[in-house]
Amino acid sequence: MAKEITSREENYSQWYNDIVKKAGLAEHSAVRGCMVIKPYGFAIWEKIQAQLDKMFKDTGHVNAYFPLFIPKSFFSKEAAHVEGFAKECAVVTHYRLKQSEDGSGIVVDPEAKLEEELIVRPTSETIIWNTYRDWITSYRDLPLLINQWCNVVRWEMRTRLFLRTSEFLWQEGHTAHATMEEAMEEALKMQGVYAEFAEEYMAMPVIKGSKTANERFAGAIETYAIEALMQDGKALQAGTSHFLGQNFAKAFDVKFVTENNQEEYVWATSWGVSTRLMGGLIMTHSDDDGLVLPPNLAPTQVVIVPIPKPDPELNVIAEQIKNDLKSKGVSVKIDLDDKKRPGFKFAEYEMMGIPVRIGIGKRDLANGVVEIARRDTKEKTSVNLDACGDNVVKLLADIQQNLRQRALDYRAAHTTKVDGWDEFVAVLDQTGGFILAHWDGTTETELKIKELTKATIRCIPNDQSPEPGLCILTGKPSGGRVLFARAY
Amino acid sequence: MAKEITSREENYSQWYNDIVKKAGLAEHSAVRGCMVIKPYGFAIWEKIQAQLDKMFKDTGHVNAYFPLFIPKSFFSKEAAHVEGFAKECAVVTHYRLKQSEDGSGIVVDPEAKLEEELIVRPTSETIIWNTYRDWITSYRDLPLLINQWCNVVRWEMRTRLFLRTSEFLWQEGHTAHATMEEAMEEALKMQGVYAEFAEEYMAMPVIKGSKTANERFAGAIETYAIEALMQDGKALQAGTSHFLGQNFAKAFDVKFVTENNQEEYVWATSWGVSTRLMGGLIMTHSDDDGLVLPPNLAPTQVVIVPIPKPDPELNVIAEQIKNDLKSKGVSVKIDLDDKKRPGFKFAEYEMMGIPVRIGIGKRDLANGVVEIARRDTKEKTSVNLDACGDNVVKLLADIQQNLRQRALDYRAAHTTKVDGWDEFVAVLDQTGGFILAHWDGTTETELKIKELTKATIRCIPNDQSPEPGLCILTGKPSGGRVLFARAY
Repeated sequence: MAKEITSREENYSQWYNDIVKKAGLAEHSAVRGCMVIKPYGFAIWEKIQAQLDKMFKDTGHVNAYFPLFIPKSFFSKEAAHVEGFAKECAVVTHYRLKQSEDGSGIVVDPEAKLEEELIVRPTSETIIWNTYRDWITSYRDLPLLINQWCNVVRWEMRTRLFLRTSEFLWQEGHTAHATMEEAMEEALKMQGVYAEFAEEYMAMPVIKGSKTANERFAGAIETYAIEALMQDGKALQAGTSHFLGQNFAKAFDVKFVTENNQEEYVWATSWGVSTRLMGGLIMTHSDDDGLVLPPNLAPTQVVIVPIPKPDPELNVIAEQIKNDLKSKGVSVKIDLDDKKRPGFKFAEYEMMGIPVRIGIGKRDLANGVVEIARRDTKEKTSVNLDACGDNVVKLLADIQQNLRQRALDYRAAHTTKVDGWDEFVAVLDQTGGFILAHWDGTTETELKIKELTKATIRCIPNDQSPEPGLCILTGKPSGGRVLFARAY
Repeated sequence: MAKEITSREENYSQWYNDIVKKAGLAEHSAVRGCMVIKPYGFAIWEKIQAQLDKMFKDTGHVNAYFPLFIPKSFFSKEAAHVEGFAKECAVVTHYRLKQSEDGSGIVVDPEAKLEEELIVRPTSETIIWNTYRDWITSYRDLPLLINQWCNVVRWEMRTRLFLRTSEFLWQEGHTAHATMEEAMEEALKMQGVYAEFAEEYMAMPVIKGSKTANERFAGAIETYAIEALMQDGKALQAGTSHFLGQNFAKAFDVKFVTENNQEEYVWATSWGVSTRLMGGLIMTHSDDDGLVLPPNLAPTQVVIVPIPKPDPELNVIAEQIKNDLKSKGVSVKIDLDDKKRPGFKFAEYEMMGIPVRIGIGKRDLANGVVEIARRDTKEKTSVNLDACGDNVVKLLADIQQNLRQRALDYRAAHTTKVDGWDEFVAVLDQTGGFILAHWDGTTETELKIKELTKATIRCIPNDQSPEPGLCILTGKPSGGRVLFARAY
């Protein structure tokens, strides 16, 4: 089974597709650009969702639900927003079908044309700020800290499962504040929550930074992002948090009365992560044998395989181990299939990225031991049956830590400080990865670099210290390095 | 605050709207027929969702996600289905907007017309069975037990918050089986899960039964439903589970190879409940002072109010009680607002339906007691501070039980066996509620009764014993009573 995957070296892009398919994560649907998230892929997304939801609630946010459809006119109200989002979108124009008069099938009923077209939401700032107008009158109504989990649609011509699809699942936070400072703090706080989630749960290290004007969200004053590095040396924008200033409050006339009885426009943020995280998770850790999952997000953390096949004696031991592990908070499955051979099963669980596999064989058992195999390094060890539970708990923590360290090491080996144009091009083509270089701060230069190399400015890192230098392209002065990469 | 609600007697429909609005559950949006589910309403929906999801997983189901859009041609493949669902729906015809040439705003780009229109899913049988064709080849692939949580759209002309909206949230289970018996068993099992959830968690008694041919799901062989009775004597269909036979397998050519190496069509079920349950929950228990929530679904089960307002001494006691209750698995909030008066707060928490309120006042505290008020009966009792935690836990169970009993008593008082037409009409108009009566089994008679009285056959109860009788309208022979009511 594992043999069926293309290796990363041979064709990285095909390797990714093979894993998504063979691990049963997702597939293309009959509807152009829309994916089907299969049960195993969805179980991982549920783990992601549950943890993020907890972190949002721990930081004071509540969930709500706003309509799928947005009246066309709403988009025109915020000038930058309409440029960014009203272009490639799904437009609902009619509300009824009917049998065709020649009996050949069903057709759109021309009499059921909507007065105003509805757009399937690509993001919900407009409909939400239109609603907030009625919810906010006084400083007492603020802050409003609301999140929604939903589907959104952005019509994409070139799609890749999880990374870029016309419909995807996401969460979008939309908060309203009395002051600029508080809104800015919120936007940065959520960037921090995303970074913590990426590092602690996905074991995916990220760089926190702000986007250049050119890469900013349509309608934002500042866009804060987290940027991760994939194994092919390309960057992945894994989450964004926007400080929206008063743009949407002005577009939708959302004012509040301050404690001093002044009328002011409300300050806003929005922030989101999507099923794109699944793509980042897959590409950060997986290898040529299949998916590798960090234990913190694995729907099944441990699988127990009786060898060569289930029998009453082995199953009893398997049950004991399972119960012990479950009492320690570990999710466990026992493989009771008696038709497949162990080798086949092992390959299958490796493909699925299950972090730990426990093999129980009669000969081992006679010696009081079981075999524990870890997915990340493929190492196997024999441990005493009595110590199995504690060993596995420790091993799961080790794997989580090792995956993160491995990703950190990869990133360190693929982050280069570059000071000249030729070196910039050479590093991009040979090493790939992140490049820290000087830039003159203009959109013109940024676009020229993109045109010449396909590299973009991923972010201006939050923790970048001031350092004088010269722009790699124009030689003009720069106050600090920014982070370049080719990106998804 | 409570004074602002219309009473049930005065105007039941307005009473419902008032509660939905004043308890902060939902509101109409700027998009015709679509609602905004507000944070408190959504928190209740999250409780419903979490419990149902657990029950689905405990019965072997897994979640997945299928596309929002369905190609128009898919609907035509199942003859009955297209009649039922392809009519009032949202039709996507274009995938791009552009600036109008006269600069007046954005318009639909006529060049971005889809070759085939897409329908926003009203239900997903077609797209899912089109997908299952690739997932099922052998009996080893069966059963397939999949559920999805998502939004669906059915264009409605007359909408009511939660009860009937153009967009709503729901879950739809879609299972595939090797035999007719197994599929039938699954459909009945899920009807049972819904009934158990309604009774144990919503404290809403339901009648389990099957629908008449006329009321069946478009494409089903049998539709099993749960029917609840609201306080205005009208029935609410609260969930349905369909035995679909091989209809969708035939329409989408989904076959499997049996253990005996025969090729056969796959057997199917589908089942769903929606945000409509919120309407049922509200109408079953609430009173003229606001929402009443069963403790099992209350986002906050207990609120602690320091009286007359928060102060350090009272807050310490409040924290102690909160921690004790939290350790007992109870969700608690302490009201630390020092601007509102207790009377105002009490009315607000009654409006929100919080099951238990604990008042902590200095005088009471000097006597070592606190005051506990239950939302369902409005009774207040003084309990010793030491016994507060245990008392509240017991009280929450009592309230859950009492709400269910109250609803059962109401239903018993509003279920009438009727044997003649005049009595049928009189009971409908005077008592309302469920009527058990004989019917000759024809769609013609069923429709005539509906036309004459607006009453419909809610279901043929699962546990109805055979009993010979004469149809109330035609006098023709009948083998058993069916359940009539006017319904939402």
